[in-house]
Amino acid sequence: MTSADAESLLAPGWAGSPAASTTGDGAWLRALLDAEAALTRAQAALGLAPAEAATAVTEAASDPGRFDVRSLAERARGGGNPVIPLIADLTEAVGAEYGPYVHRGATSQDIMDTATMLVAVRTVDPVLADLARTERALARLAAEHRDTAMPGRTLTQHAVPTTFGLKAAGWRSLVLDARDRMTAVRDSLPAQLGGAAGTLAAFTAYGAREATALPAAYARELGLQAPPLPWHTLRTPIADLAGCLAFTAGALGKLAADVLVLSRTEIAEVAEGSGGGSSAMPHKANPVRATLIAAAARRAPQLAATLYGALAAEDERPAGAWHAEWEPLRDLLRLTGGAARDAAELAERLRVRPDAMREHLHATRGLIVSERLSAELTPVLGRARAKALLTDLARRTCAEGRPLGELLSEEPELKDVGLDTDPARYTGSAGALTDRALERP
Amino acid sequence: MTSADAESLLAPGWAGSPAASTTGDGAWLRALLDAEAALTRAQAALGLAPAEAATAVTEAASDPGRFDVRSLAERARGGGNPVIPLIADLTEAVGAEYGPYVHRGATSQDIMDTATMLVAVRTVDPVLADLARTERALARLAAEHRDTAMPGRTLTQHAVPTTFGLKAAGWRSLVLDARDRMTAVRDSLPAQLGGAAGTLAAFTAYGAREATALPAAYARELGLQAPPLPWHTLRTPIADLAGCLAFTAGALGKLAADVLVLSRTEIAEVAEGSGGGSSAMPHKANPVRATLIAAAARRAPQLAATLYGALAAEDERPAGAWHAEWEPLRDLLRLTGGAARDAAELAERLRVRPDAMREHLHATRGLIVSERLSAELTPVLGRARAKALLTDLARRTCAEGRPLGELLSEEPELKDVGLDTDPARYTGSAGALTDRALERP
Amino acid sequence: MTSADAESLLAPGWAGSPAASTTGDGAWLRALLDAEAALTRAQAALGLAPAEAATAVTEAASDPGRFDVRSLAERARGGGNPVIPLIADLTEAVGAEYGPYVHRGATSQDIMDTATMLVAVRTVDPVLADLARTERALARLAAEHRDTAMPGRTLTQHAVPTTFGLKAAGWRSLVLDARDRMTAVRDSLPAQLGGAAGTLAAFTAYGAREATALPAAYARELGLQAPPLPWHTLRTPIADLAGCLAFTAGALGKLAADVLVLSRTEIAEVAEGSGGGSSAMPHKANPVRATLIAAAARRAPQLAATLYGALAAEDERPAGAWHAEWEPLRDLLRLTGGAARDAAELAERLRVRPDAMREHLHATRGLIVSERLSAELTPVLGRARAKALLTDLARRTCAEGRPLGELLSEEPELKDVGLDTDPARYTGSAGALTDRALERP
Amino acid sequence: MTSADAESLLAPGWAGSPAASTTGDGAWLRALLDAEAALTRAQAALGLAPAEAATAVTEAASDPGRFDVRSLAERARGGGNPVIPLIADLTEAVGAEYGPYVHRGATSQDIMDTATMLVAVRTVDPVLADLARTERALARLAAEHRDTAMPGRTLTQHAVPTTFGLKAAGWRSLVLDARDRMTAVRDSLPAQLGGAAGTLAAFTAYGAREATALPAAYARELGLQAPPLPWHTLRTPIADLAGCLAFTAGALGKLAADVLVLSRTEIAEVAEGSGGGSSAMPHKANPVRATLIAAAARRAPQLAATLYGALAAEDERPAGAWHAEWEPLRDLLRLTGGAARDAAELAERLRVRPDAMREHLHATRGLIVSERLSAELTPVLGRARAKALLTDLARRTCAEGRPLGELLSEEPELKDVGLDTDPARYTGSAGALTDRALERP
Repeated sequence: MTSADAESLLAPGWAGSPAASTTGDGAWLRALLDAEAALTRAQAALGLAPAEAATAVTEAASDPGRFDVRSLAERARGGGNPVIPLIADLTEAVGAEYGPYVHRGATSQDIMDTATMLVAVRTVDPVLADLARTERALARLAAEHRDTAMPGRTLTQHAVPTTFGLKAAGWRSLVLDARDRMTAVRDSLPAQLGGAAGTLAAFTAYGAREATALPAAYARELGLQAPPLPWHTLRTPIADLAGCLAFTAGALGKLAADVLVLSRTEIAEVAEGSGGGSSAMPHKANPVRATLIAAAARRAPQLAATLYGALAAEDERPAGAWHAEWEPLRDLLRLTGGAARDAAELAERLRVRPDAMREHLHATRGLIVSERLSAELTPVLGRARAKALLTDLARRTCAEGRPLGELLSEEPELKDVGLDTDPARYTGSAGALTDRALERP
Repeated sequence: MTSADAESLLAPGWAGSPAASTTGDGAWLRALLDAEAALTRAQAALGLAPAEAATAVTEAASDPGRFDVRSLAERARGGGNPVIPLIADLTEAVGAEYGPYVHRGATSQDIMDTATMLVAVRTVDPVLADLARTERALARLAAEHRDTAMPGRTLTQHAVPTTFGLKAAGWRSLVLDARDRMTAVRDSLPAQLGGAAGTLAAFTAYGAREATALPAAYARELGLQAPPLPWHTLRTPIADLAGCLAFTAGALGKLAADVLVLSRTEIAEVAEGSGGGSSAMPHKANPVRATLIAAAARRAPQLAATLYGALAAEDERPAGAWHAEWEPLRDLLRLTGGAARDAAELAERLRVRPDAMREHLHATRGLIVSERLSAELTPVLGRARAKALLTDLARRTCAEGRPLGELLSEEPELKDVGLDTDPARYTGSAGALTDRALERP
Repeated sequence: MTSADAESLLAPGWAGSPAASTTGDGAWLRALLDAEAALTRAQAALGLAPAEAATAVTEAASDPGRFDVRSLAERARGGGNPVIPLIADLTEAVGAEYGPYVHRGATSQDIMDTATMLVAVRTVDPVLADLARTERALARLAAEHRDTAMPGRTLTQHAVPTTFGLKAAGWRSLVLDARDRMTAVRDSLPAQLGGAAGTLAAFTAYGAREATALPAAYARELGLQAPPLPWHTLRTPIADLAGCLAFTAGALGKLAADVLVLSRTEIAEVAEGSGGGSSAMPHKANPVRATLIAAAARRAPQLAATLYGALAAEDERPAGAWHAEWEPLRDLLRLTGGAARDAAELAERLRVRPDAMREHLHATRGLIVSERLSAELTPVLGRARAKALLTDLARRTCAEGRPLGELLSEEPELKDVGLDTDPARYTGSAGALTDRALERP
Repeated sequence: MTSADAESLLAPGWAGSPAASTTGDGAWLRALLDAEAALTRAQAALGLAPAEAATAVTEAASDPGRFDVRSLAERARGGGNPVIPLIADLTEAVGAEYGPYVHRGATSQDIMDTATMLVAVRTVDPVLADLARTERALARLAAEHRDTAMPGRTLTQHAVPTTFGLKAAGWRSLVLDARDRMTAVRDSLPAQLGGAAGTLAAFTAYGAREATALPAAYARELGLQAPPLPWHTLRTPIADLAGCLAFTAGALGKLAADVLVLSRTEIAEVAEGSGGGSSAMPHKANPVRATLIAAAARRAPQLAATLYGALAAEDERPAGAWHAEWEPLRDLLRLTGGAARDAAELAERLRVRPDAMREHLHATRGLIVSERLSAELTPVLGRARAKALLTDLARRTCAEGRPLGELLSEEPELKDVGLDTDPARYTGSAGALTDRALERP
């Protein structure tokens, strides 16, 4: 299982990532074969097939290299899914004696859906590892910069101060939210087994006393959950995946959005550890990791929408809704997998520039603390006068280019009032909030 | 709070539903006022404001009719949200003495987000009630039709038999999945309180010792959860709502998709209790409830996509991502609310026609049980011969219009083999699966 | 027709805009009535109804105030669309004698679709006017700042210089692209007339010799195009609207995205004429117009997706796809209408700060012209040496904080080489491109 | 250029189609190389590079096999796009003498965008050919079945009769709409050339007198349109592609939606020429072509939404919006290309069953013509009495299972009234509309 079979020339976001390896055509083929082999083994475990058949199918299915993935892809056109030609090839590979036990009693959707769950689990595991790396790096940044003051920005404008620690703690809390949602979904993913119309009827026809025991046995073989019902058109697992993947991409997208702002040439409060080169300008250090995460966050929601849309699947197998799931789910897994990898690299290598942050706190010449001054002046001057004075001085600060603190000190009525105009001391509960957020395991 | 202010001429799907009442401009205004009043009360509870101020603000905020919603909407253009003009009007309504305690220390997003959570809770509650009605009606249908055989359909074609009981049990399981996701999200929705940049700094400036106690006190006033961090740009609650609402609309969309198929003139295995009239054809009984649910299911995923897309919100308040959430979230609440109402009506009144189902089991002249015959013939004739024979007889069944059972009985080699060609007896574990599914509380 | 009936508390982006007036429930009701009246008039014009009937229906339909829009909305639930109850009310309003001529031969979709086209035309016209205002203001800015150099930014970093004139000319070219697409679609919008299944059969039953003449006559009454075929499920007009509206919102979104970047406190190269106030920080001047346009641009694509998705409409009238169009199309019209209004205000009042632009050209201490220096040094030093030298000096520029030009002047091998390191003179063909772009009418 | 490099195991919809060949990593690599070679040739044509350099680059770029696409994909991670490593490899392949002329003056986006346009043109051409095949086959069907009556269906119910000819003519009109939109966009696709920030400055630095002549020369080399302005962040061409591709997928989705309905076992009015096999049920003839088209139509709108969303691209090159375009545009090209191929096969081989259509006209026992009877009875009985009678008889038709015509003939008041209850004669202007639609070239 290598990333070699994943088509990634247009995908620097996930090329070379663990998700590239776990979602390529080769990886999917392996999962399909795993699903077929487990099916025969589960039947053998319940006495519905000879143990030798299970061995033979498992053996034949163990080497994806024996199967021609391109040929399977093109022959999939006949019946509309790749399982149908795969059964033919696998049956032939197993040979005459045990070939009849290949896929016995199942429908192609049983195999396709089960393989999809396997691919999902195999992709989510490394994603969780990358989220853990990201989370740790962000925790470190938050602790380290617990008291690093910087401008809080709203609607692109400096508002009041905040801290970089609180910002990093917020990023981390989103990563933990993603981890929690992803973990819950991964642990819930079921095998699929229902036969042609989800009644398990063929298994009974082939001799099962209690066909309802088969799905659980099947799930056990694969390390998946036993399905309460065949879910050919009850697509909760797909929708749950869509939701947690879109959430994860979006959560990382918040990190990326902030890094992109803070990396701007004029702001430069952070920098990616190793910026990307440019073909035309050798000096440029682009925030490439953040850019690629941002691109993933732009795409994931619409892919999830297609999957949510597939919930409305008619009949016992729909004509189109099911088929519309495969590529979008793969894309979502890849995008999220790539974004998690990039986020880990980004978080681990992020360079923070407290000096720049401190400097920018003064960019508005004190207006960034006008909220505080308003609170402090109101008891002294009364609400109306305080407001009028501040409005006037704010205007003068802009017009004359002089610090608000300086103008205030010239006001006779404030002679004996001690006003604190240092933005770095107006960070409210940022430290306490950061501490509390970092307690979350 | 009536549905009168909800603009619903183009929305038969949710017009007149509980969600119409809970999401209209008037309902939102009430929630905004509730959020402002609770803020002052929470401050009073912590000794940051006089009790009289809390009473005065609560009193002034108790009657949304005092405020001109259309004027607020137009003045919202100035700062980009309706809270800013509302503060002015509410402050004036409270009067000179306690007016200064209106909105003190908060930012408009604190109020807007909190109001949104209130609206969400108020809308989700009746949705859950409608899901409960739906679930009960479907449980009844599933139990009643546990053994009502009908054609299982895949890719629009009869595949093998299933039962209407299993189908209804499947619908119900999706409704329960929706209920579980919706309940979990409702119980997690937090109040919002952070001040201008999420540091709670202004509250400290106004005298709070431990401003971090304020959000929890605020949440208590409103029956919402205390936020671990201000979530101005950590939009997990919005994304969670998006996910569970899109899931619910899609889950109900599956029910609708099936009802639409089964209601077709040529199929008519089910009918809505009261079909909708047509302007041109007095006799037509259209599946209107299913149609409107289907329409909601088509729209919800893209609305959720917009909300997932808003996760990537830069800074301490983003310039656009936040503003892009409001209407789509309202739309999602309405669509899901309307769909839940329609689903309850649909499920409670659905007329099932077992006769039509039974008749259709024979539409393929026995081919619907060819899977079973294949399993039964293989040990008798060998796999190859069994397959060849069935393929040939299937062809003849179509060409000659004669039942497969009849053709089989003419085969000399099968003279003494008892074959069961009754589709109604080939429903596998449908009954057992239905029983198991109905055990889920 | 006022905006009073449009529910806009959550919609500062379009509240009070022309689109609010043309798309409210009241406006839609008026369009439905216009469509009914025109239908009777068209029949009268072809001799299929008495002229008195046309007069009576037109008269009764002329005052939307006679009809209870909320009651219509709720009664729409019966048949799934508001035309059915409207016919009843209109027929009653017309009275016993001519009532039978109301809606005669038509289906409710004929009226609903036609009204939608009327609403679209009535909304697009003011949008085009706002695009024209925007375009003129941008042309003025482009001409005025033809030679105002500023940093070109790629992946958030200063790349090479550009001009504000070229930037404004680019914005304008997108607005013209939007205008052209919007105009073409508006001029193509057809009336809808087909009767129950699109065969015009009822009109023949009611006496029409050539029922195929009726749609054209109908379209003439309304100033719409004659439909080549009834388009109940051939939804080209809806998809065309979706495309041009999403394009327009996106085109204006580009303008907004740039304004948001350039308005940042640290950049401040432009400012909205009148920034929006903040509830907590009296001094803040937020780019509210750009924010609201950006929000529209985030939502429009997914609304368009729902409309494109409705193309796949089964049968002669689909069960859901049609119903899913109404609100998203209204939302798209509003969002685009609001964005066009805001773009006009934004462009007309934008304050440009050439000084800040000039200053920022030097933010990278000359690295912004390294591309040019590379081209100039290569013939002098050879490609390899030129590249090595520039890489080294770029590193030193960053490390030592000294201008690249200064470092270059210290290189002995470059003593007699005249190098131009002024960023303001490295704007390439920006001026010529601006001139050319402004020639487009 | 083969389809071998397109990853298609999950994509029976486009596997093996022309679009698979024109959009694979190998095809994209070829287009990138074509773009680089043309750039040097265009410079040579204007005297900015020696002719030998153009020859050398063209020669080196002529064999994509020399380049390691997987390595390029992974190295693309460095700078965020595959052009950067490709320039290095191509420069090396060209050799020391002319290597410096590779990519001279351009930015990687110039090459990437231009290659995308080349891929688009190369994909659209076979799509247009498949649309032409589809259109011809549908025209044949429409002409052949001009007078084949069948039930018109609305909201899943029989409404009034229509003809299969009109239905096929409607499908064809959508295909022609798609062709027209696709052709217009293909003919408008521009080359991209602007240099680092779109000012063409580097070309001037490298000696161009009038760099503005270069883009047109470049476009000529490639058979693309000359760009009015560099469009790095003026993404009209991408949006136009998104719109016409989503439209085409949706237009074909309408055809598929109808075929899926009409193929249902109970309806069986049409059948795909060669249905797809099922792994479990040898007799099933699934409408696989329609299923795969339907799946494409479900996915295309959301992919287009991502592309429309990318219009709001900040700066001279955006950090994410551009990168988010590549895979969705490729997916859209593939989906539409595959759907066009499948539509051609579907239309050419569709089997129509007029007998089934005729039979179904009687499924409602005459209610399908109640509209006509209402029109005919009104002058005889008066409107109120006609309506009451029909309502009553419709009820009895359903309850008693007797034909409406029979019940009517028993009404004494209608003794001498000749009523035509034959559905096949109530097709209105279907024939004339079909004729008119077929005149469209």
